[in-house]
Amino acid sequence: MIVPRVIERKRDGGRLEDGEWHELIQSYARGEVPDYQMSALLMAIYFRGLDRGETNALTDSMIESGGRLELDHLGVPRIDKHSTGGVGDKVSLILAPLIASLGVAVPMMSGRGLGHTGGTLDKLESIPGFRTNLSLETAARQIEAIGCALIGQTREIAPADRKLYALRDATATVEVIQLIAASIMSKKLAEGLTGLVLDVKEGSGAFIPDPNREGALARAMIQLGADRGCPVVALLTAMDRPLGCACGNALEVREAIDALKGTAPQDLMDVTFALGAEMLLLAGKADTDADAWRMMQGAIDSGSAVAKFAQIIEAQHGDRRVIDDPSRLPTAPKTADFNAGRDGFVVDVSPRTIGYGIISLGGGRRTMDDAVDPAVGFVISAKPGDAIVRGQPLATIHARDDAGIREGMRVLSEAVTIGEERIEPLDLISLRIDADGSRPWVRPRV
Amino acid sequence: MIVPRVIERKRDGGRLEDGEWHELIQSYARGEVPDYQMSALLMAIYFRGLDRGETNALTDSMIESGGRLELDHLGVPRIDKHSTGGVGDKVSLILAPLIASLGVAVPMMSGRGLGHTGGTLDKLESIPGFRTNLSLETAARQIEAIGCALIGQTREIAPADRKLYALRDATATVEVIQLIAASIMSKKLAEGLTGLVLDVKEGSGAFIPDPNREGALARAMIQLGADRGCPVVALLTAMDRPLGCACGNALEVREAIDALKGTAPQDLMDVTFALGAEMLLLAGKADTDADAWRMMQGAIDSGSAVAKFAQIIEAQHGDRRVIDDPSRLPTAPKTADFNAGRDGFVVDVSPRTIGYGIISLGGGRRTMDDAVDPAVGFVISAKPGDAIVRGQPLATIHARDDAGIREGMRVLSEAVTIGEERIEPLDLISLRIDADGSRPWVRPRV
Repeated sequence: MIVPRVIERKRDGGRLEDGEWHELIQSYARGEVPDYQMSALLMAIYFRGLDRGETNALTDSMIESGGRLELDHLGVPRIDKHSTGGVGDKVSLILAPLIASLGVAVPMMSGRGLGHTGGTLDKLESIPGFRTNLSLETAARQIEAIGCALIGQTREIAPADRKLYALRDATATVEVIQLIAASIMSKKLAEGLTGLVLDVKEGSGAFIPDPNREGALARAMIQLGADRGCPVVALLTAMDRPLGCACGNALEVREAIDALKGTAPQDLMDVTFALGAEMLLLAGKADTDADAWRMMQGAIDSGSAVAKFAQIIEAQHGDRRVIDDPSRLPTAPKTADFNAGRDGFVVDVSPRTIGYGIISLGGGRRTMDDAVDPAVGFVISAKPGDAIVRGQPLATIHARDDAGIREGMRVLSEAVTIGEERIEPLDLISLRIDADGSRPWVRPRV
Repeated sequence: MIVPRVIERKRDGGRLEDGEWHELIQSYARGEVPDYQMSALLMAIYFRGLDRGETNALTDSMIESGGRLELDHLGVPRIDKHSTGGVGDKVSLILAPLIASLGVAVPMMSGRGLGHTGGTLDKLESIPGFRTNLSLETAARQIEAIGCALIGQTREIAPADRKLYALRDATATVEVIQLIAASIMSKKLAEGLTGLVLDVKEGSGAFIPDPNREGALARAMIQLGADRGCPVVALLTAMDRPLGCACGNALEVREAIDALKGTAPQDLMDVTFALGAEMLLLAGKADTDADAWRMMQGAIDSGSAVAKFAQIIEAQHGDRRVIDDPSRLPTAPKTADFNAGRDGFVVDVSPRTIGYGIISLGGGRRTMDDAVDPAVGFVISAKPGDAIVRGQPLATIHARDDAGIREGMRVLSEAVTIGEERIEPLDLISLRIDADGSRPWVRPRV
C-alpha cells in the first residue's frame, strides 16, 4: 500500500476498498503508518466523507484491532444504551441495573466528562471504592454472574479507535458524522451486542446542537448496526434543559438511587423508561411499550432493580451501603439556595452554562489530567415553563467553600432566565428512529 | 497558539494572521508543532487555499527559519533563473556563466532530478570533482570573487521549507499553487536576489501539464516577488519536445559547453537568450531585448562566457579541462543510432518518455537514494515538424551495455512518432508575464 496514493485518491473524491481500510488501520495501530499521513487522510475525509461501505470497513477494521467481550455462550440478549451526552443525564446508572434485573445482559461501556457534558464513569467513581477499569475477561465473568458490568473503554477494545480519536482531537477532524459513528459503533459492536439503543440529545445543551447533524449521526449508526446484525433504535430527547434535578457526580448518583427506589423527577423517569422500553423490545422481553413500562415499574416496586444496582456496586468493589445510606457518598461542606429574584416564568435553564459551571466548581475536567471533586454541583428544581414567585428557591448549590458558593450563584444567575411569558420547552422525547425510518414518539398508556 | 483551533479555522474557510504563520512555522521548524498537525493543516489548505497575505506570511516565515546569502554589500544586481522543470533543459548551465560574465551576480540554487525531469545539480556533478554542497558563506565569497555560484538548497536555507516539502510529498499535499510558489520563492528570496526570471514550461513534458495551473503558479510567484521588492518575469516555453538535442547528465554538460562556445541547437540558444535578456533587463544592464541579445552573443564570441564557466568549475573543485577536452566527461561505453523506420514527418518526441527512458538506462533516480550513471542518455537530432526519410538517423543512444542499447531502442520507438502530415509544434516561447500582465513573446531583431 502506497499511503500517499491512498490519501490522494480520497482527496480527489475517490473511495478506499475494504482491504485497503483493513491494511491501513492495522498498520496504523501497529505504528507502521505514521500519524502525519493518517491526519492528512482524516482531513481529506472531512471534506470528502466516507460512503456506507467505507464506514463499515473502517468500523470492522477498528473492531479487529482489539479484543471483544465474548458473551455468545450466555444465550441471552445483550443490549446497551449510548447517549450523545448531556447535563444531568444519569440515565445509564438507572437503566443498567433496571434492565439487567429483567433478564437482559447489559454490557455497558461508558466515557468520562467531555466539554460541558458529564460522564458515567466519573459519576460511578464517586461511589467509594467503585472500579470501572475492569479487564474484558473480568467484565465478561461479571456479566455472566450478575447480568451487567459498567466499564470504561479498556485498552483491549478497539485500540485503533482510541489512537485515531486522540489524533482527530489534535487535528480538528472530530466533527465528521461517519467517523463519529464508526468510533462509537466499533466500541459498541466489540461488546458483542444483540441490540443497541441510542439517546440522541437535541437542543442548546447537545454536544452537536444542530439537530440535522444529530439525526444524520443516528442514521449512520443505525445503518452500521443494521449492516452487521445489531439492530439499533434511536430516540431524540430534549437537552435544552438539564435532565432531572441533580447536576454533579455524587448528586446524580443519589438521584439515580432515588429513581431505582421509585422517587425521582418525572422527566428523568420518562426518558429512562422510554429508552428502557426500546431495550426490552430489542431483547424480545416485551411485545409493546406498555408491557415494557409495566415490567420496569414492577422491577422498581419489587426492589429488584435497586438490589441489582447494589449487586453491581459490590461486584465492582464499591461500597454498596450507599444504597441505603446515601450520606456515605461524598458530600459538599457548603450548600446554599439560589432564589428567584422576581415573579415570572422560567424561560431557560442553560445546560451548557450549568455543565461548565460544575467544572468551575471543581466537579469536572478542563484537561484530561484534572482531578474531579465528586461532591460539588447543583440541584435545580426549576424547569423551563414553571411559574415562580420572587424569593422562591430554584436550586441548591453544593460547593467546597464560600468561594464556590459565590461562583455557583454567578453560574445560576447566568444559566437561569426568568421572563414575563410562559414558553414551551422542547418535547422531552420527540422522535423514534430505526432502520425503517422515523416517527413521532408516543407515550404508552400504562 | 492552540494549533487545533488554527487548523479548524483554515478548515472552515478562514485565514491565519501574519503572526500566526510566523509562530506556526518557527514552532514547526523547531519540532514543537508535530508533523501530524501540520499535515492536517496542509490538507485543509489543499481544499481552502491561501490568500495573497497568507502566502506572503508563509514565505517570509520560511525564509526566517534559516540563513540568507548576504550579498547587499556587493552593490551589483543579483539575478537568478528558475525553471519549472523539463527534459534536455540545460539552460542553467549556459545562462549562469553567460550572465555572470556580463557583470551580473548570479547566485543560482538548483535541484536534483524529480520524476521525469532532470536536475541541474545532477548535471553539474557529472563534471569530475564538481561540488555543489557549498555552505552559504563559501557561496557568498565565491559570488563576491567571480560573480556566480551553482549550489543546492543547503541545510541553512529555509529549513522549514525543506521539512514541509518532505511532509507534503508523503501526504498528497504537493499540488497547491500557493504552497509551490511559497516553497520556490522562500529559497529564491533567501538568495538575496534583486530580480528573478522564471522559465515556465508548457506542453506534455511539463511537470504540471495543465497550462492554466502553470500560468497561475507564475502569477503567484510574480505577486510574491512584487510584494517584497524582487521583480519577477516569467516566460512560457515549449516542453512538448526536449530542449536542444542532448538528454542525459554528461551529454547535456557537453551541449552546454558547445553552446557557450557558440555552437548549439537553435532552440536551446533561443530559450537561453530569451531568458538571459530578461535577466539583463532586470539587472539594468540592457535597455532592450535586442541590446541584451547582442551583449550575450558578444560574450560568447569573445570567449568570456565559456571562460566564466571554467572559472566556476575550478572554484567548485571541478576539472576545468572538460571545457577544452569534453572527452574528460564520463562517456558511455556503448553507442548506437536509432534510425527512421519509414519516410514521413516527425510528429512527436515525447519528453516524458525520454525522461523516464534516461532513468531506465540508469541516468536518473527512482528513489532519492539511487546512484546516477552520468554518462548515459540520448542525443536526439529529430524535432517535431522535421521531414525525414527511412533509414535516416534520428538519435544516438549512449548506454552502459548492450541491454541498455536495447532498452534505449525501445524507449525511442515509444517516444518518437512519425506521421504522414507535417504538424506544427508549440511556439518555442509563447508568452511573457510580469506584474503588469502578459503579452505574446516577440523575437528581437538583432
